Amino acid sequence: MPTPIPPAEDQLPTLLAGIVDLNTRGELAERLAASHASQRPLRIKAGFDPTAPDIHLGHTVLMEKMRQFQRFGHEVTFLVGDYTARIGDPTGRNALRPPLSPEQIEDNARTYTDQAFKVLDREATQIRWNSEWLGELGFDDVIRIASMYNVGRMLERRDFKERFDSGKQIALHEFLYPLIQGYDSVVLRSDVELGGHDQIFNLNVGRHLMARYELEPQIVMTVGLLLGLDGSDKMSKSKGNAVGINEPPRDMFGKVMSISDTLMAAWYPPLLGAAADMSDPNRSKQELAERIVARFHGPAAAAEVLAWWRAGRPADEVHELRVSSGPIFQIVRDAGAATSGSDARRKIEQGGVRLGGERVSEPLQVIAPGRYELEVGKKLKLRLVVEAAGSEAGRA
Amino acid sequence: MPTPIPPAEDQLPTLLAGIVDLNTRGELAERLAASHASQRPLRIKAGFDPTAPDIHLGHTVLMEKMRQFQRFGHEVTFLVGDYTARIGDPTGRNALRPPLSPEQIEDNARTYTDQAFKVLDREATQIRWNSEWLGELGFDDVIRIASMYNVGRMLERRDFKERFDSGKQIALHEFLYPLIQGYDSVVLRSDVELGGHDQIFNLNVGRHLMARYELEPQIVMTVGLLLGLDGSDKMSKSKGNAVGINEPPRDMFGKVMSISDTLMAAWYPPLLGAAADMSDPNRSKQELAERIVARFHGPAAAAEVLAWWRAGRPADEVHELRVSSGPIFQIVRDAGAATSGSDARRKIEQGGVRLGGERVSEPLQVIAPGRYELEVGKKLKLRLVVEAAGSEAGRA
Repeated sequence: MPTPIPPAEDQLPTLLAGIVDLNTRGELAERLAASHASQRPLRIKAGFDPTAPDIHLGHTVLMEKMRQFQRFGHEVTFLVGDYTARIGDPTGRNALRPPLSPEQIEDNARTYTDQAFKVLDREATQIRWNSEWLGELGFDDVIRIASMYNVGRMLERRDFKERFDSGKQIALHEFLYPLIQGYDSVVLRSDVELGGHDQIFNLNVGRHLMARYELEPQIVMTVGLLLGLDGSDKMSKSKGNAVGINEPPRDMFGKVMSISDTLMAAWYPPLLGAAADMSDPNRSKQELAERIVARFHGPAAAAEVLAWWRAGRPADEVHELRVSSGPIFQIVRDAGAATSGSDARRKIEQGGVRLGGERVSEPLQVIAPGRYELEVGKKLKLRLVVEAAGSEAGRA
Repeated sequence: MPTPIPPAEDQLPTLLAGIVDLNTRGELAERLAASHASQRPLRIKAGFDPTAPDIHLGHTVLMEKMRQFQRFGHEVTFLVGDYTARIGDPTGRNALRPPLSPEQIEDNARTYTDQAFKVLDREATQIRWNSEWLGELGFDDVIRIASMYNVGRMLERRDFKERFDSGKQIALHEFLYPLIQGYDSVVLRSDVELGGHDQIFNLNVGRHLMARYELEPQIVMTVGLLLGLDGSDKMSKSKGNAVGINEPPRDMFGKVMSISDTLMAAWYPPLLGAAADMSDPNRSKQELAERIVARFHGPAAAAEVLAWWRAGRPADEVHELRVSSGPIFQIVRDAGAATSGSDARRKIEQGGVRLGGERVSEPLQVIAPGRYELEVGKKLKLRLVVEAAGSEAGRA
């Protein structure tokens, strides 16, 4: 017997918490009411890109919102965008979008959903792959879908507009991707599509297309984007500022403890659904760290890591990393303090890297085995265990 | 035994006559020389839209150029754009592009090619239908093709640019049509694509796509657009200013005789490949009319019509039309002097329509059966036979 769907007014405060864009509030209230009256669950859609399989705290904000809909008895579809992942970026300009093989996509998607079920209710989640319908489309279908949207409106999307205005190239197929996402909503007949705030344009394309297909247009809801550990950029694995939900409890706890008070205040509402008590920031930060560990590793692990922390964990246990001896730029990169070798070189050349308190200026300087404190910028401080090259490098 | 392909310098003067755009001349000369050396014919492509099956003099300018390539031993492909005709304009905004059934398309294409073979050498012409390959494309193929062209460049096409700059809508699928045309060239591996001057942008898209597919890019050649009987617009059946190549000899002759001397001077080079002798415009016009009739109906018909004309044909035999009695706006429309009922009303309201020398101002004025002289604007004068409504209306 499924959970009875409560009245709209019992759902709205929870569902609206943390929502940035809502199109439209009136429709949401109406549709929730109709769903309560008929006890027909709403169809909630959220799409995920299987190119980067590891889920971090940033993703969980959206998943938590999906979970809330599930708790109220609605049907959540976890949509894997495998069709476009298989194509990658055919221009080859975007190194972050290499074409993936069907096997890679399936592996990534499995990793992804396994992690997602730490937040979502597995039983109440449908997993769909958009290749199921996109693989069936012919050129004539594409023309019909494309006829339902216009160029001027597409160029209003912020990144397109900026590139167009500054004379940068936009390849024509990039205009097709938002349509694909929208067409997914047509096929799924979504009542609500959830996404990150940066997806608002694409979500509204789905709304528009559904209306053109004479379907009740989906309601669009976005959540804010979580800032990464650096407090400046959106959390992203490729930027090295993420807390992965599969990281070991001590790493996770330590990373959260390393963030600024300002960032902590920003993380509280999306991650804990409440404002931080700023009268004792350190205590609040510990609570945040503990609850995050508890969510992904369970209460026992959280109690253990908190005790370890309070016992005055050895300073070098925090973010201690083992890396192989070699040029400093490689070490900075391998330690995850730079997104690439060239990013590491730049950081060194700009004077942002210190080893044992001393500024390093030569990216190719070879670091001998030993223990060091590595600082990159003002925020990132790590204990490094540099091992003889050839020994197995890995996280301690 | 096929015609031997002559040296490039023997072909160039003929092939370049009347060409408006040529991209590039150097490549054309080189490829003709290589073709002479190897005796491999060049692949010449020209695409035709089967939505409007009747061929008029405007089309024949392009066909004559195709015929010239055939005479030099090259392979001409008459490409029927049936795939897009089947789709029509999915926005429904363009009444001139209704979706056609496969049967209609086949009928139109047959009518079209039957007429085309009055100019082209049937044996040396390949007829291809682009549904053959476009029907096979999947969404992934479309994405790949679309990735090879960019939005900014597409917006340089004159009509797109004008609409974009003036805030008019451009539906997204309209950006796909030039790509389709270009992809046709990739499939056909064309050496040369011929088209009307208004197709220059699309032809160059094909050139660009072929390079992206690492094929030798096609050479692009366009012919000028023939002005219609009114001397102001491009010849077009829907504008009512066309001379169809299937029209009876007397109609054809009479229509040509009705054009202005200036227009005659403009028609001479594309239709006869020579300048008009303007010392005796009337004689030159008769020669033009006679040669056009001879081309499409044979020398006997041309001799007959010339004799009839010289014998002082009854004035009312020229452009005499039978129409049913009814409101004047319908009669103007049925007489082909307006493109639609509302166009006819506008012409009447603007004071451009005279019946028996009297200006008509009321579009709904009913015209009783009888014989009238109808004038629309300054150019168009017709003899009307208005018959009782219900009797069969048709061209006399």
